Amino acid sequence: MKIAVDAMGGDYAPKEIIKGIELARDAYSNVEFQLFGKTDEIKQFLQNDSRIQIIQADEVIEMGDEPVKAVRTKKQSSIVLAATAVKEGEADAFFSAGNTGAILAAGLFIIGRIKGIDRPGLTTTLPVVTGKDAGKFVMIDVGANADTKVLNVYQYALMGKYYAQNVHKVANPKVGLLNNGTEADKGDMNHRKVHDLLAADKDINFIGNVESRELLNGAADVVVTDGFTGNAVLKSIEGTALSMLKLIKSSILSGGTKAKFGALMLKNTFGDIASSMDYSKYGGAVLLGVKAPVVKTHGSSKAPTVKNTIGQIREIIDSHMIADLNTYLTDHADDLKQIKDSIKSGK
Amino acid sequence: MKIAVDAMGGDYAPKEIIKGIELARDAYSNVEFQLFGKTDEIKQFLQNDSRIQIIQADEVIEMGDEPVKAVRTKKQSSIVLAATAVKEGEADAFFSAGNTGAILAAGLFIIGRIKGIDRPGLTTTLPVVTGKDAGKFVMIDVGANADTKVLNVYQYALMGKYYAQNVHKVANPKVGLLNNGTEADKGDMNHRKVHDLLAADKDINFIGNVESRELLNGAADVVVTDGFTGNAVLKSIEGTALSMLKLIKSSILSGGTKAKFGALMLKNTFGDIASSMDYSKYGGAVLLGVKAPVVKTHGSSKAPTVKNTIGQIREIIDSHMIADLNTYLTDHADDLKQIKDSIKSGK
Repeated sequence: MKIAVDAMGGDYAPKEIIKGIELARDAYSNVEFQLFGKTDEIKQFLQNDSRIQIIQADEVIEMGDEPVKAVRTKKQSSIVLAATAVKEGEADAFFSAGNTGAILAAGLFIIGRIKGIDRPGLTTTLPVVTGKDAGKFVMIDVGANADTKVLNVYQYALMGKYYAQNVHKVANPKVGLLNNGTEADKGDMNHRKVHDLLAADKDINFIGNVESRELLNGAADVVVTDGFTGNAVLKSIEGTALSMLKLIKSSILSGGTKAKFGALMLKNTFGDIASSMDYSKYGGAVLLGVKAPVVKTHGSSKAPTVKNTIGQIREIIDSHMIADLNTYLTDHADDLKQIKDSIKSGK
Repeated sequence: MKIAVDAMGGDYAPKEIIKGIELARDAYSNVEFQLFGKTDEIKQFLQNDSRIQIIQADEVIEMGDEPVKAVRTKKQSSIVLAATAVKEGEADAFFSAGNTGAILAAGLFIIGRIKGIDRPGLTTTLPVVTGKDAGKFVMIDVGANADTKVLNVYQYALMGKYYAQNVHKVANPKVGLLNNGTEADKGDMNHRKVHDLLAADKDINFIGNVESRELLNGAADVVVTDGFTGNAVLKSIEGTALSMLKLIKSSILSGGTKAKFGALMLKNTFGDIASSMDYSKYGGAVLLGVKAPVVKTHGSSKAPTVKNTIGQIREIIDSHMIADLNTYLTDHADDLKQIKDSIKSGK
């Protein structure tokens, strides 16, 4: 398999991206890479070009660039060229740590949607940190769309199901709808409609509404939500975890010798906790609903995270999730059209 | 001042409610209470009836009751009778740890909206746990309305401002709009409209969009949001904090003697952290936009939280926030009507 890499995106690009790609190349013997970016800069950091092809990109889409406009006008940018390589079948997946909006736009406009999916959704894997079933779950959408319709959320459930089933290897994954209460009639009209659609779908193991309070307790294997709420919830979880770690640190520092001694004794424990909450170990956010894996990792990612994310992309490709989702959508085109029509007619 | 108390609501009612009211009575010499509930049960737990009047309520609204229906049909319930006492001017505020929906419905339908407010919003005070300005902030709406319009969010900003200014004593409180990015054009059309309304309002110290990741860092003194997102964010913060505390506990328990010894050394530190994150110290959730303070505390509240919440209600009454908000709304009735019309006409 071959992965098209935007070597220029991210706070530590191209250095840490290239370092990460070399780590991944050494770890995964069946993966080849195309590195898109400024050839001279890439060559400065690349130690060994085995299974790594460098492709010159004259332009870079910056973090502050307006995403859709940048993808339309910067035709020679590393993001546009890498996405184009995937579109043309030269590479199997697209990876970047750059401008999120531009990555989503490149996925949508260059690589293109799967037939049957109206809007792709952005997916993040999060840890289950408590409870006996500690593991992980997938949340979709975490911010591809700020304005989401009933049909989109329904389709997120299908995409999330294939991700959990094929990539996370969860048999018959439990799908939950993020809502402000567990009862079936919770939320606004749109949430009630999505709830009823999912409850009626025999191909989805729908467990009903789940509340954001229970996510890290493993409420569901797939949590579906509109992109606005998903984004707010993801950032709340992240912010609260970071604040608590900072709070622990500052309390210890101001807690005198006894506290500092205690912290020393608990060093491994604190390491375990930070690692439990650190979801970059699962890789990046995946844009589902497009024809090939489009994966974005945090702008602040360093080499180990880049390597993990390549491992995740490899699992996605190996899992054939996109082909399986495609087959399902084709086989059930009539049913899905009926659902679409029923939403439109307001039934 | 006199507070009407639903003695029957909450997991530990009436015992812990009554215990808490007695603690509050002993702490705040200028407060009188009306306890609504089953007289015989109340008498069983009440130790001293100084400044506490017992009023018989034959019915109880249970946690599982459909809120609006329960308020309409259980006319002799402790919630309905307590809210009616406030409506009739016999008491100055309403307190309950019972069925949230029923409390909101009683506030809305019995006590009634302030003129100029279209929908009341539920407010929670949360801690700022990091940064040099550690303090607290108020978030509104955290779940009174699942389906919120532009005008409602704009009015939340006004109500939140008066809460921060009068009750939290913050001069010229910074108001932020919860959004999925800090740029002015973030979010869906409704968020952009609210953003522009707030930015144009010279009476609101609007600092722009804030992201949920930054809330506990003290991004704003007042965070305004629709009730669906606010509820999801509040529960995410709560869930993440609880999960991390559990994670710390289980890591220590499985970490061997060294970890247990370290934990002993850090006992005070962990106590400080749990107390930093425990927002029940600020009291309960306040329904703003109704004619008198309606305050709901967690169903699981025990006596100390009940006492804190009474302290909070006392501060709200002393602060004259409702009278001040009322004066503002009356004085600016023309401006507010203009804003309402401009939203309706889609300008």
